[in-house]
Amino acid sequence: MERKESLDIKRVFGRNVRRHRQQLRISQEELAERADLHRTYIGDIERGVRNVSLVNIAKIAAALELPISRLLDIENAEKSFGRTQ
Amino acid sequence: MERKESLDIKRVFGRNVRRHRQQLRISQEELAERADLHRTYIGDIERGVRNVSLVNIAKIAAALELPISRLLDIENAEKSFGRTQ
Repeated sequence: MERKESLDIKRVFGRNVRRHRQQLRISQEELAERADLHRTYIGDIERGVRNVSLVNIAKIAAALELPISRLLDIENAEKSFGRTQ
Repeated sequence: MERKESLDIKRVFGRNVRRHRQQLRISQEELAERADLHRTYIGDIERGVRNVSLVNIAKIAAALELPISRLLDIENAEKSFGRTQ
């Protein structure tokens, strides 16, 4: 179970970022500008293929006006999206 | 405020790791073994000098038997340690 969380964390984070960005009704480009990151990097994050580091996690959380811990919230991600495997 | 969080996140994370490790009464070496990471890397994390990535955050949370979001919890860190600046 813990191993599984470890393997899925990039996807969980990406889904949480996308969900909160869409709730704010902003584009990936707008989020990228707010977070001072590149648009394609945001796209990669949302697709779950980036192993994002603490400093960029914090930038994205600030840009989404959320506590950092909310973006790592596995329970919420599962509730919103269900398990895909 | 958000900018400050962004700057402090490595220290917040490090303090949370140390606090939870000490609550489990395990050494840095024991935590390193459980998380399959190097002991000196754990030491650096606890001192707040490592920009840890999602996959390693997940490994450490699993080794500490905690939800990942708990390690990014800025409020708890502030309550436990107070602000140093």
